[in-house]
Amino acid sequence: MEQDYLKIVEHFYEKRNLHVVGKSVRRVGAAEGVFGRTKYTADYFFDRMLHVKVFRGTEPHALIKNVDTREAQKAPGVAAVLTAKDILGINDWGFTFADQPLLASEKVRFVGEGVALVAAESPEQAEEAAKLIQVDYQPLPAVFDPRDALRPDSPKVHDKGNVMFQCQVRKGDVAEGFRKSSVIVENEYTTQRQEHAYLDPEAAIGLPEPDGSVTVIAGMQSPFLVQMNVAKILGVTLDKVRVIQSATGGGFGGKDDVPPELCSRVALVATRTNRPAMLIHSREESIRCHNKRYPYFIKYKSGASEEGKLLASEVELISDTGAFASHGPYVLWRSAVHAAGPYIVPNVKVDAFSVYTNNLYSGSFRGFGNPQVQFAAESQIDELANKLGVDPVEFRLKNVLKDGSYTGTNQLLDHSVGVEECLRETARVSNWKDKRRGGLKNGVKRRGIGVALMYHGNSTSRGASDYSAAYLMVNKDGSVRYRTGITEIGTGTHTGHMQIVAEILGIPMDYIHLESVDTSAVPDSGPTHASRGLARGGAAAMVAAYKAREGLNAIAAELLSCSPDDIEIVDAQAFSRRNPEKKISFKDLAREAYERGVNISHTGYFRAPKNVFDQQKGQGQAYANYTFASHVVEVEVDTETGEVKVLKVTPAYDIGFAINPLLIEGQIHGGIAQGLGLAVMENVIIENGVVRNPNLMDYLIPTSMDMPEIDKPILIEKAYRLGPFGAKGVAEPPLIAMPSAIANAVYDAINIRIRDLPITPERVLMAIKRSKNDA
Amino acid sequence: MEQDYLKIVEHFYEKRNLHVVGKSVRRVGAAEGVFGRTKYTADYFFDRMLHVKVFRGTEPHALIKNVDTREAQKAPGVAAVLTAKDILGINDWGFTFADQPLLASEKVRFVGEGVALVAAESPEQAEEAAKLIQVDYQPLPAVFDPRDALRPDSPKVHDKGNVMFQCQVRKGDVAEGFRKSSVIVENEYTTQRQEHAYLDPEAAIGLPEPDGSVTVIAGMQSPFLVQMNVAKILGVTLDKVRVIQSATGGGFGGKDDVPPELCSRVALVATRTNRPAMLIHSREESIRCHNKRYPYFIKYKSGASEEGKLLASEVELISDTGAFASHGPYVLWRSAVHAAGPYIVPNVKVDAFSVYTNNLYSGSFRGFGNPQVQFAAESQIDELANKLGVDPVEFRLKNVLKDGSYTGTNQLLDHSVGVEECLRETARVSNWKDKRRGGLKNGVKRRGIGVALMYHGNSTSRGASDYSAAYLMVNKDGSVRYRTGITEIGTGTHTGHMQIVAEILGIPMDYIHLESVDTSAVPDSGPTHASRGLARGGAAAMVAAYKAREGLNAIAAELLSCSPDDIEIVDAQAFSRRNPEKKISFKDLAREAYERGVNISHTGYFRAPKNVFDQQKGQGQAYANYTFASHVVEVEVDTETGEVKVLKVTPAYDIGFAINPLLIEGQIHGGIAQGLGLAVMENVIIENGVVRNPNLMDYLIPTSMDMPEIDKPILIEKAYRLGPFGAKGVAEPPLIAMPSAIANAVYDAINIRIRDLPITPERVLMAIKRSKNDA
Repeated sequence: MEQDYLKIVEHFYEKRNLHVVGKSVRRVGAAEGVFGRTKYTADYFFDRMLHVKVFRGTEPHALIKNVDTREAQKAPGVAAVLTAKDILGINDWGFTFADQPLLASEKVRFVGEGVALVAAESPEQAEEAAKLIQVDYQPLPAVFDPRDALRPDSPKVHDKGNVMFQCQVRKGDVAEGFRKSSVIVENEYTTQRQEHAYLDPEAAIGLPEPDGSVTVIAGMQSPFLVQMNVAKILGVTLDKVRVIQSATGGGFGGKDDVPPELCSRVALVATRTNRPAMLIHSREESIRCHNKRYPYFIKYKSGASEEGKLLASEVELISDTGAFASHGPYVLWRSAVHAAGPYIVPNVKVDAFSVYTNNLYSGSFRGFGNPQVQFAAESQIDELANKLGVDPVEFRLKNVLKDGSYTGTNQLLDHSVGVEECLRETARVSNWKDKRRGGLKNGVKRRGIGVALMYHGNSTSRGASDYSAAYLMVNKDGSVRYRTGITEIGTGTHTGHMQIVAEILGIPMDYIHLESVDTSAVPDSGPTHASRGLARGGAAAMVAAYKAREGLNAIAAELLSCSPDDIEIVDAQAFSRRNPEKKISFKDLAREAYERGVNISHTGYFRAPKNVFDQQKGQGQAYANYTFASHVVEVEVDTETGEVKVLKVTPAYDIGFAINPLLIEGQIHGGIAQGLGLAVMENVIIENGVVRNPNLMDYLIPTSMDMPEIDKPILIEKAYRLGPFGAKGVAEPPLIAMPSAIANAVYDAINIRIRDLPITPERVLMAIKRSKNDA
Repeated sequence: MEQDYLKIVEHFYEKRNLHVVGKSVRRVGAAEGVFGRTKYTADYFFDRMLHVKVFRGTEPHALIKNVDTREAQKAPGVAAVLTAKDILGINDWGFTFADQPLLASEKVRFVGEGVALVAAESPEQAEEAAKLIQVDYQPLPAVFDPRDALRPDSPKVHDKGNVMFQCQVRKGDVAEGFRKSSVIVENEYTTQRQEHAYLDPEAAIGLPEPDGSVTVIAGMQSPFLVQMNVAKILGVTLDKVRVIQSATGGGFGGKDDVPPELCSRVALVATRTNRPAMLIHSREESIRCHNKRYPYFIKYKSGASEEGKLLASEVELISDTGAFASHGPYVLWRSAVHAAGPYIVPNVKVDAFSVYTNNLYSGSFRGFGNPQVQFAAESQIDELANKLGVDPVEFRLKNVLKDGSYTGTNQLLDHSVGVEECLRETARVSNWKDKRRGGLKNGVKRRGIGVALMYHGNSTSRGASDYSAAYLMVNKDGSVRYRTGITEIGTGTHTGHMQIVAEILGIPMDYIHLESVDTSAVPDSGPTHASRGLARGGAAAMVAAYKAREGLNAIAAELLSCSPDDIEIVDAQAFSRRNPEKKISFKDLAREAYERGVNISHTGYFRAPKNVFDQQKGQGQAYANYTFASHVVEVEVDTETGEVKVLKVTPAYDIGFAINPLLIEGQIHGGIAQGLGLAVMENVIIENGVVRNPNLMDYLIPTSMDMPEIDKPILIEKAYRLGPFGAKGVAEPPLIAMPSAIANAVYDAINIRIRDLPITPERVLMAIKRSKNDA
């Protein structure tokens, strides 16, 4: 099978002398956002559009005996009331298992599950009518703690039993490792549910098309997942579902899992009523009814030799998937394979379980299982260092992964490993040595400094085909249309793609028009998750541009009487390297292509080589490549109020190659904010299946006032051979190291280790109290 | 320059054993039309949409001293009144010359020329406000007859003089040819203006986009011409203009010329007001203000030997282009190169002139200059036959083009020449010999039978790069998205493309979803005119599908352990020819492609080889290939009312290969109707620059009651090497032979030759009267 695309991307590995990539360029579309022209889903309007309200179940676990929609049907302005019976396809939108009905018919499994859809002329009419729906429930015993759910006598959330997924890692012999260890640390950690809290909650529009197909418009991460789900619900093939991404006010993983549900619902209404249909979630609905970051119970045992070499890690992970699996197996697997951290650990044993309960379901969230386990792993590393009386930076330097190291899953990393440089640079820039020694360790407000490393496998794995695609057309006047199926969710990925295209074609960025993400116009590009948007999608962009460039080079070579290999195009001027004086404009080249019958419009396709992995042993290539980071964090702990104030963050990232340093910095800043929230304040509280803080008054996220000083991010460029110009993903990573770095800094400040997230004032005070009692 | 696409298309030349192409399939979208779901431009609705009214000049020729829009600006509901001053780009939408302002600023040149645009909340408000615009004209002398306009003392419509374009053909020595001729016929002919009379008059919508670009939606033939014109008017690059074709109720050439004007106007309003803008022409506006078929004055001298061999044709053509050139040079040139007819004529001299006047401008119309000259040429052939006392069929058979013949421009036709077969078949099926001898030649109602041949060069020429493109994606579930930049204008071209794609991929047609024509999503496919939509666009479809098929074949070969060359895919089942029992579904193949990292989404690109032509001598390859036809027509002439009733038509077409016989028959029926109108009734009457019959009450087109019996069209398949499966264009041809065949039949009925179109009752009666006076 010809895979020329690998050669194309590798051709630009570590190639420099660049003109557009590597430069800090403002995010494309930024001005539209600032001036309020950006079109979010709710900004669309269609004639005869219906407004949809989801009627939701009120029981955490109950059989549905009957759904009576007769009164609702008759209510003013109601066009349709739809239940599971109206689904012509398969009533399921589970990603990995067929466990999640679009509309519950036999059973509800969490409080807020959708049971019926009411479509009316106005949102108010839909809401009023929904109140008239009567459901006859037969309540079932419910289970809310995953540890309870693992018991044989627990109520079964699904017939198959409550273990949604399990996986393991077996490297070496941990028992032997611990025997050889002179220091062992064993602890339990818990992490909480986190809310995505995007700028715009979920919304979707369905449009019936004259040919019987349907178009869906929504903010989202993964249009091809949406397409697949809508097609499944409607019982049609993929070509009958067109998905268009509207502006998306942040993805954070939630816009990966959730849009397929909303889009399927509006598509159902649109096709059944033959009218446009809009569904907008309120903030409360968004928080109460949609997936959250998986909460974890973690047991972590670590051993090291007297010389400070890590010898063994033994980890047990239990995560609460709630009522449904969503992307859960991938999340859990990512935790398991990252559990040993970015270190050389000869013996690793990980057992990971994800368990059904009657809580709100968990799902994708930036970091995808890595932040939870990294919090525990990096806390453990710190404790080992402390126990050994070694500086945490020094201890890490002894164990950190390098080119030629093997990971916890025994994956050889033969290049592109820059974590040591990250660590050294953050230590240097933060003035680690001085600050670690100094700092206020007494009084009410105490200061500490902590460090944490992070590695994050790029893109999808577990055997998924890791492809992406793009489409590029060079117009007759030399202007370029570029379209990717990778979505823009605030990270600036599209800007990066355009820089890559501009670089390869030799044109300024303003030659390129970015086309909307539209499944009817670009091949399946895979999902936009797992930090793959630039790392994989950008490779597809590169291939598309390269193929167009080949045609243009051939023409330029004819016109300039030289070899195509001698052609350079810089700033939209082509010339031969042997005679740079004679130039042809890019515009003329494009016109000549049309004149000479040379195709300069191409699909860019890229698929990373498949990773070889033994799922039984949890050994092998977990991910094709890894992004690495180090965060040094300084905190001030108020021992009277318990407040942890993060003063400063010094971040360093090995991102392979910085396509756009400005946007990478922005991404790091955003991740620090979200990681800060995860570390010290955010927590979706569910009691007996009911979310107790479903609004942004009771659920706190960091504001600009909470933000620490952030040192200019240090970018280490250990190029990855199959990344575009060597680039690796930087989307998820910046939040991952925050909780552990903060916990380590808190320990440095008050000599107390907090092992439960978030590190709220209450927890800090309680820990101080407990520590005093212990003393 | 690699041109693998030529090899791909040629690979399928005359290849048979076909499963989808060659079959009569219902036109895709037909049901939507029947059930009223088809979305024409006026069916779209956008929030905050403005309605645009064009304020038009009232003078045939005048200087504009001042345009006062102040009162109009203040009128109720008015959002903007725009004039030439508001155009930031180039105020010109001339196709071939920069002679046609979008909004007249210095001068008006015909009655109805646009001077200002009024955009208001409702169409009525726009219309009322337009009445308040005051223009201060300084009238200039006007000229309305192109023969007058050629005089040195004529008013000049444009500074460059009144000869818009001239061209010539010089083959052999006509003087010598006439010296050798034993019979010479010399006559003058005139043809009239014809109105396109589409189902939907012109309409367009402009949408401002958040990024400052503009989207235009309109019924049209040539989105890439629209894109080019809008970009020129707005002063932006092509990527900033997205053009989407809405359903188009017939094109007939008018939707080639006119949409760029409307689209530029709505784009101007949309970008200046930042609001959606809609412009709909009334039927009267459509007839009064937009291009018509070029009217011609033709002098034609023909000579033949005693043995009945054609020896010389000398032709002079003067056409009235009206105020602007539009596509005129291409129209005139087509007339010139077709003037000798589908015959071997050793000596040909053609001089053709197209002349500016202050009439409504002429432009593209189905047949593009060929119907006019063919009317004269085939009348001449008939007269020669009569003078020689030879049966018109026999005379034609002696002279008709064959494989290996040279055309009037000395172009060698080495294959794909089926005109002789067409002639023989129409003569046989129509029972020509018996009917020619028989028929009522006395009494009030007299019957006659006539024949006419037709040839029509396919696609663009005069050195234009004859390319087309398509884009095809095979989805993961084996469903296919296909998009072409060739428009569907009622001919069924898209259905033909889909048949080609289905055939090449080995799938049923319902696997394929036809995507809308959208310049943001498919490369420049060239215009949809000159009968190239299937002949060239279909070749691009073939290439796209072939490339996807290559990937699928490779996968199937791996799975079936055979060579890719052994793979057959029929009805979505792949198998090896060597072992046809073992099958893999198309769906599985597609999934495997995604799994294995094989790209199965491709641009289809095709460009016909350039024709070599000497414009000075008018010699060489005028067109790559020709469609041929013969029509036998039976008429009844009422000698008291003058009415010519066409009783029956027997058509035969050499279309290379019939991709879809049903739709070809439909196209032939439609062409016969429009050709009938051109022959006997349609005529746009302009007096002193004013259209006198701008409605479908005074301008008559044939109704179903006027339609003759039509014999099942005879399809001759002389495959063209670079047509998809050998296919040639059949879009324009079916109207071309109608006027001459009818005139020849009228002569057979009443022994009087009518040389002026249309052959109205008045003209017939006048001719009968004149003939009686002469007698």
